[in-house]
Formats: sequence, C-alpha cells, structure tokens
Amino acid sequence: MSVLIVGSTALDSIKTHKAENPRLLGGSASHAAVAASFFAPVKLVGIVGQDFPNRYIQLYKKHNIDIEGLQIVPGKTFHWSGEYEVNMNNRRTLATELGVFESFTPVLPASYLKTGFVLLANIAPGLQHHVLDQMTRPKFVVADTMDLWLNIAMPDLLKLLRRVDGFVLNESEARQLTQEDNLVRAAKKIHKLGPKYVIVKKGEHGAILSGPSGMFISPAYPLEKVVDPTGAGDSFVGGMMGHLSTTRGSIESNLRRAMIYGSVVASFCCEGFGLTSTHRVTRAAIDERVKTLEALTKF
Amino acid sequence: MSVLIVGSTALDSIKTHKAENPRLLGGSASHAAVAASFFAPVKLVGIVGQDFPNRYIQLYKKHNIDIEGLQIVPGKTFHWSGEYEVNMNNRRTLATELGVFESFTPVLPASYLKTGFVLLANIAPGLQHHVLDQMTRPKFVVADTMDLWLNIAMPDLLKLLRRVDGFVLNESEARQLTQEDNLVRAAKKIHKLGPKYVIVKKGEHGAILSGPSGMFISPAYPLEKVVDPTGAGDSFVGGMMGHLSTTRGSIESNLRRAMIYGSVVASFCCEGFGLTSTHRVTRAAIDERVKTLEALTKF
Repeated sequence: MSVLIVGSTALDSIKTHKAENPRLLGGSASHAAVAASFFAPVKLVGIVGQDFPNRYIQLYKKHNIDIEGLQIVPGKTFHWSGEYEVNMNNRRTLATELGVFESFTPVLPASYLKTGFVLLANIAPGLQHHVLDQMTRPKFVVADTMDLWLNIAMPDLLKLLRRVDGFVLNESEARQLTQEDNLVRAAKKIHKLGPKYVIVKKGEHGAILSGPSGMFISPAYPLEKVVDPTGAGDSFVGGMMGHLSTTRGSIESNLRRAMIYGSVVASFCCEGFGLTSTHRVTRAAIDERVKTLEALTKF
Repeated sequence: MSVLIVGSTALDSIKTHKAENPRLLGGSASHAAVAASFFAPVKLVGIVGQDFPNRYIQLYKKHNIDIEGLQIVPGKTFHWSGEYEVNMNNRRTLATELGVFESFTPVLPASYLKTGFVLLANIAPGLQHHVLDQMTRPKFVVADTMDLWLNIAMPDLLKLLRRVDGFVLNESEARQLTQEDNLVRAAKKIHKLGPKYVIVKKGEHGAILSGPSGMFISPAYPLEKVVDPTGAGDSFVGGMMGHLSTTRGSIESNLRRAMIYGSVVASFCCEGFGLTSTHRVTRAAIDERVKTLEALTKF
C-alpha cells in the first residue's frame, strides 16, 4: 500500500565540529519520504520555492516518490540552519527562514485522497489537520510533532491527537506535553488524549511503543560514528510507516518489526550529512542491519 | 558456585522531593550482595563500625550472606547522604563521612580464598587489588567503579583493568575514562585496557555489553514509579554475577541472560528506599519480570 507523507521540505545548512554543509536536502517530509521509499510507494505533500535545486527533485524521483503533491511556487524554499555540539546530542538553531512555507496550504491531488497509510510528519498541527480533512478514511494515521508546536499550537495539537491512530514524539516533548517525568506514565497520559499507539523516541537509546497489548522496547542500532543526526527521527517514523504499509495482518502484530526497520533506516541517516547516506542505502543493507539488531538483542 | 563481593558497606541518608530516609542500609557491597543472594551463596567483604544496627546484620543473614569477611570495628560506619532532584536522574552528595572505611584493609577469611566468582563492587581500586592479591585463581572477576576513582586513583584503576575479566561502568564514566563520546568506540578503547567484557550502564535506558562475540543491547525494565535509584547499578551487577555463577557452559553464552536478571533486580531496587524493596523480593517475582522483559523486547 502507498504511504502519504506531509511535512516540511527544506534546505538545511548544518554545522558540526568537523564540517559545514550548506543547503542540503532536508525537512521532515524529505527524510520520512526517502526512508519510506525503501519499502513502499510514497506520495509526498510539501512546498518549495523556485530556488529548490533540480537535483533534489531528481533525488525524490530516483526513489519513486510521487511529487504530484509537491508545490513549486515563486519565492524561497524553507531554510533551516543549525549547529551541533561536539557530542552530537545537543544542537542549536542558528536561523529559520520560512520562505514559501509561510503561506503553505497543502492541497492533495485527487490521486492521493484514498491513500491507506498517512504520515503527518513534523509540521504545524493546523496543516496536519488540513491534510486529514481532505482524505477518505485512511487505514492508519500517524502524526509526529516538535516542541515548537507544543509551545505555540497546543489547542490544534490536542485536537489532532483525537484524530490519529499513532503519535510519535521524543522524550522531552513527552515530558513537556504531560508534565510527567516518568515515560511509562507519560505514555499512559498521552493515550488518554486520543492515540491508540504512542511512540516515544529516545535517540541513541532507541524508542518505546505503548499500545493496546502493552509496551515494546525498541533498540537503536549502535553506531560507531554519528556524522549528522538531523532527520533521524523523521527517517525512523518514515521507515516504520513504509514497512508497516507492506505488512499483512493487524497493525498491532506488525508495528514492532516496523519500528525496527525504521530504527535501522535512522541509523543510516546518522552516518552522513542530510540525506547523503540514506539515499545511497539499499534494501539489502537495511535487511542486513535488521538481522544484526536481532542478534544484538537476543538473550 | 559462590560469589565473593567486596565493596562499601554503609549507612545512606537519602532525600528525594517526596521523602527523607536516614541511615538506611547501603553501600555497593550491600546492594550487590543482596541482589546476588537470590541466585547463589554470597561471601561478603566489608567493614562497619560499632554503630552498625544489628537489624542490618540480621538482614544479611536472612539472605544467607556469609559475613565472616565483614569486619566490625570500633568507630563509625561509613555514612553517605545525598539528595535527588525531582526527575530522580540527578543527585548530589550532601555529606560523606568515611568513618571506619578510612583505615579499611580487606582481609579474606580462609574459606573465601577459592571463591570462583568475584565481584569487586565500587570501592577504591587499591582495595580491589588487595582482594585479588589474596585469591587463588578465581574463574571470573568483574570490577565496578565510580567517577571518584577516575579522578583520584587512575593509575591503580588502570592496573586493575589488566587483572579483571569484566569491567562495569556507567555512561559518563566510560566517556571520562576514554575521552570518547561514542559508547561503541569507548567500549573498544576499554577492551584495549584489559577487560574481555565491558558493560556500560545507562540507567533507565538499560546497558550495553561488549565482548568477544560482539555487542548485546540489554533493556531496562520499564518502571512506572522510581522511588530511589540508589544502589540500582550495584544491584544490577550483583544480580548479574549471582545468576552467572549458577549457569553451566561458557561465560560468553550466559552473560546476556545474567545481565537481564541483574536488570530486573535493579528494577526492584528502584521501587523502594535503600534495600527496602529489594530485600522483600522473591525469586518467583524476579522470574516473572524476566518473562515480561522477554515479551517487551520481542519483535
């Protein structure tokens, strides 16, 4: 089945202590779409300006990502620049230039309306609503978010939580949303806000899933070298949704393994700047790391 | 097989935002010994003053812990007091009164000398050496440590690393010891210092093992309520060594499962102040949580 992915489509300028890379292909939807493309056909929804490099359009196309829903309009592409500390865990934003994103209204092409799997990657909750409003009963909807929306768009986000099957957020966002330090209790509180499945991302420590049949502790693939973690969370949820959309049987019985696939794609993402590592990956390399992860967690 | 455990035997006064508990039974050896006692006979080496409450001697005895190697001498028992922040992850030391520990020389009773499994729980590396010096070819020796020894006794610690089979330390200590942020690379550097097995404790995120046949990602048991994490790391390594000493076959093939048992005992430790929760646990309750942890990590 196809996966519809809406989110940001951006140019990222990323600084680490080792290198500086201007205007990489980035944004939550770009990372999630490429990650999902290893498993399933992807329909992308986003917006870019006329400065958006043609090579990035070609990159989407190389991954068979349907870009009928990608608006290319006069103006500048959303540009984010940030800097990582030496330990690669903390980053600070240097500049955010919204550009054409300021006036974005996601309009779905007719061919997108009945997509079964929907990933509302990180973007303003109002826009996530707007995508759902246009769709015809999707089978499974997952939303991701970021601290910014908890700070400035909480009412929209709370309404969204009542409309989605799964909600993905990171540790600090889970604590901020629930005012609860303990993640087990935080997940329980988030269920009460709507989502049947709650996934808390913990970066290098993996992720936890809380669902109707209890919890799942999902490991992260251990990396010897992290070049740039930007987009790892988006790759995780994109890979997860891509894999999930190809499985038979209940969501419940397939979500754990889908998270493992997402985790592996995220590990590749961290090994290069922007999408440079992810987009060169093969399905065989992904399967290999999934096998390794099985061996690494067996007891 | 028996496990010999040397480390601190202390009185802990612990403050959290919810409660204050003075003069609990604590110390690395106390936590590790009680944890190991659920699986195997334990021989304790330590020192306390004449103020050491008889009820704590009775607690050791109730767990069939051999205390022939526990010196009871004139003076005051080592007393530590600390305070946890609301999130229970950060703590600060309020006072450390060494008392009788200042002049401690661990002398092993004759009946201890041939113990097969040796846990050098957190204590000055010089004392850990002194215990090994007296022993007759133990089968498996593991040492734990703390940041203090990295700061003030590095030469002794480095010498110790060449004498032990396994070394256990937490994330920040691994980074401090190796000057390496990435834990996979940190573990490799620690192997070069001597130990065949390196275990990095990550608190609520579990632990990782690095050994001859690669890595193992060991999950932590997810808790809804953490009352007091003091001693959780000691319980982990104590439970691990206790369980390991009862297994047949190679260390390599049994260490992963032993870590899971350690992790479960550590989870019980966190659910009460000091040893109040751990010492009431049953083997059946431990086995139950191990089963749950299997279910929580299956994919």
